[in-house]
Amino acid sequence: MADEFDVIVIGGGPAGENVVDRAVRGGLTAAIIEERLAGGECSYWACVPSKALLRPIDLAGEVRRVPGLSLGPIDVAAVLARRDEAVGNYDDSGQARWIESVPAELIRGHGRLDGPRRVRVTTPEGERVLTAHHAVVLATGSVPALPPVPGLAEANPWTSHEVTAAKEIPERLAVVGGGVVACEMAQAMHGLGAQTTVLVRGDGLLGRMEPFAGEMLADSFAEAGIDVRTRIGVVGVERPEPGGKVTLHLSDGLPLEADELLIATGRRVATHDLGLDTVGLPTDAPVEVDDSLRATGIADGWLYAVGDVNGRVLLTHMGKYQARVCGDVIAARARGDELPGMRDLAGGYGAPQVVFTDPQICAVGRTERAARDDGFNVRVVDYDMGAVAGAYLMGDGYRGKARAVVDEDRKVLLGVTFAGPGAAELLHGATIAVTAEVPLDRLWHAVPSFPTVSEVWLRLLETYGL
Amino acid sequence: MADEFDVIVIGGGPAGENVVDRAVRGGLTAAIIEERLAGGECSYWACVPSKALLRPIDLAGEVRRVPGLSLGPIDVAAVLARRDEAVGNYDDSGQARWIESVPAELIRGHGRLDGPRRVRVTTPEGERVLTAHHAVVLATGSVPALPPVPGLAEANPWTSHEVTAAKEIPERLAVVGGGVVACEMAQAMHGLGAQTTVLVRGDGLLGRMEPFAGEMLADSFAEAGIDVRTRIGVVGVERPEPGGKVTLHLSDGLPLEADELLIATGRRVATHDLGLDTVGLPTDAPVEVDDSLRATGIADGWLYAVGDVNGRVLLTHMGKYQARVCGDVIAARARGDELPGMRDLAGGYGAPQVVFTDPQICAVGRTERAARDDGFNVRVVDYDMGAVAGAYLMGDGYRGKARAVVDEDRKVLLGVTFAGPGAAELLHGATIAVTAEVPLDRLWHAVPSFPTVSEVWLRLLETYGL
Repeated sequence: MADEFDVIVIGGGPAGENVVDRAVRGGLTAAIIEERLAGGECSYWACVPSKALLRPIDLAGEVRRVPGLSLGPIDVAAVLARRDEAVGNYDDSGQARWIESVPAELIRGHGRLDGPRRVRVTTPEGERVLTAHHAVVLATGSVPALPPVPGLAEANPWTSHEVTAAKEIPERLAVVGGGVVACEMAQAMHGLGAQTTVLVRGDGLLGRMEPFAGEMLADSFAEAGIDVRTRIGVVGVERPEPGGKVTLHLSDGLPLEADELLIATGRRVATHDLGLDTVGLPTDAPVEVDDSLRATGIADGWLYAVGDVNGRVLLTHMGKYQARVCGDVIAARARGDELPGMRDLAGGYGAPQVVFTDPQICAVGRTERAARDDGFNVRVVDYDMGAVAGAYLMGDGYRGKARAVVDEDRKVLLGVTFAGPGAAELLHGATIAVTAEVPLDRLWHAVPSFPTVSEVWLRLLETYGL
Repeated sequence: MADEFDVIVIGGGPAGENVVDRAVRGGLTAAIIEERLAGGECSYWACVPSKALLRPIDLAGEVRRVPGLSLGPIDVAAVLARRDEAVGNYDDSGQARWIESVPAELIRGHGRLDGPRRVRVTTPEGERVLTAHHAVVLATGSVPALPPVPGLAEANPWTSHEVTAAKEIPERLAVVGGGVVACEMAQAMHGLGAQTTVLVRGDGLLGRMEPFAGEMLADSFAEAGIDVRTRIGVVGVERPEPGGKVTLHLSDGLPLEADELLIATGRRVATHDLGLDTVGLPTDAPVEVDDSLRATGIADGWLYAVGDVNGRVLLTHMGKYQARVCGDVIAARARGDELPGMRDLAGGYGAPQVVFTDPQICAVGRTERAARDDGFNVRVVDYDMGAVAGAYLMGDGYRGKARAVVDEDRKVLLGVTFAGPGAAELLHGATIAVTAEVPLDRLWHAVPSFPTVSEVWLRLLETYGL
């Protein structure tokens, strides 16, 4: 039967694609259902276009710090054109071909659960009802959430979706939010010419990271002329003309006028119209899973959820990781030879994350606060990255900071944060050290090359007392 | 007595400074003898100035790959000025103050052994004879070696010393050698305007690294217009006028005319006039040491050698690492509580190294060939770094390659090589993985952030079959 598969995945983003890839590699047949573009949010309206927009801004920042180089004005049209190239001009035929090559069947349409092991798909050609022999995997991701502010929905604001797809740069942009999307897009739009104001409800930027990260970024934004206002709420929005000027009424009583408004205050899991009720699950909450990514509370254990929709951690690479685990688990269970390593172990250590601002900010594992909250015997080691010779050689006025959070009982790293220009590629070493629980006295023999910025590792360990 | 110290270090480069720092931290008194500038070769005539010269060239290469940015011509004078700043204008007072702050005594002059535990120093004010209670440490480094080519010495060629201190860029530069210094300085001088020819005796560039590294670099040099000629020797050199045009006679019979000549064919350990004969050691060979950096064959074990002079591995960061071990060992032996971790363990895995060319090339551990020669059960995993999304986002036409050398018996990494733009900071993760012998199935749970270039880690492990 064409409509029976070993595995059916709802959602064709990076997580869904990885499930299919691993399950098929494990000997199973698979279908993947996508109602928009194969490749998902990340490829077209999130990670990829945002980094395409940020890269020239980031590099321009590096150039400004290096005597002897001089940069002409940024050619905004060329930057937007490369963004369009990076998203394949919003054409997913490459991704569709990749799915075929797995091989798996790409079914275009809206999929929803229809009782145990059954998925009903509304396609342009009509309805199809699919049956899964082994597993149905939910990988529908998340969608931007709009806060309930009077006039906001009517103002048709930008979310991550629209800002990463911008065809022109607004003269004045108001950004609501202080998290990763807000910071990255404020950086990008400012760099491409928008006069940018960031409105943060809380005390500062990047509230989930070590406090110094957000403080350094706020300083950098201030110097660059990005207006960051903290402890401020939006109480109302007016936009009389569609696409016209927008006025924000703020909790401090002052109105703010802008040409465009970006709302980046969070996302909600994409469980709408997913048929969760047909299998007895709540329809408005993340799909709870165990470390094998199997949904809890489902008889016979045929339902899985990977990526944002399970609410574990909303990061593409973690969704892909969960998906690899999940695809392997499903194939292994079908064969009856599951291995202990087939579990989401990484999530428990604390997911790595990079914020592609200037400075770049990256972290893995627990912050000091999270480690203390979790009851560890914590020691914090800080080091000024600008004092490393390799950082000086990166350019004038390099400013950066590194923090290691040490578990004093086991002498391993619980978390590491780096904030500095070009810090993104420093992170993976920390991710290895945290995830593999490499003892500090073994890390001591991992010698950073001189003169790289990575020498901050030596300085952190020296500061610790090694 | 002012001329008695617990530890006497001959050579005030980074290695010597680190010995003193660690020994004093361990409760000992120390003197450090330097006849040129405190801070050593690395700070003034090697790593630091070379990277100061390379950074703008490197960054210009990155900018050229990013649509939307346009660079004016490089301001050579500004680049040379920042190089001068980076070397502190060849003034070592900052380093001298640091040594005082340790605290240790900086003795300016030429030091040489004068029998057991004794060091004779020729200073501008006369001779001093110092006595060491616990240890004498040799940290004199290495010096560029000139091959015995007729006319070469008389031509007064540049070595690493002169090229990194260049006050102007020659119109035509001939570089003899194909190792790190030759490649980095060819890149820098070409980028600053010199028409550059590289003459290599062997089959290609960077002969000690994985073959693909040198091949990629040769391709990049060819595209940039650097003329690389392999399997060619220099049989004679003529330079009739001091500082004037130089003619090289080559083994292929063709003469090559240049305005300056850089010899980068290797270094020899700086054991000249070091008094090694007074303690029964050969005067023209590296000072052999055990893993505690103690010279072998010396009664009572009071002599140590760190850095280039022991011939283990001629890299600043490895010399510094050895020095930390050595300083700790000396202090621990003085106290009687030596720890097993106080050994040069890193050297045995294979030192990390970065070549700051475009592409940057970095490696740690064993190459495939070295691993096979050492009898390991080897599997090699290659991946095209340009196929990683993060690399595409770095710029158009990113080309890179990664290789992991796996020990199939223990399922750990024996070596890793990355070649690609901006690869330098990727290395430390590999250094941690190799040095800590992190099992591959644990590395699998270290998730690289999307979209960083570090995602090549995922691809390598997937390609391996995980």
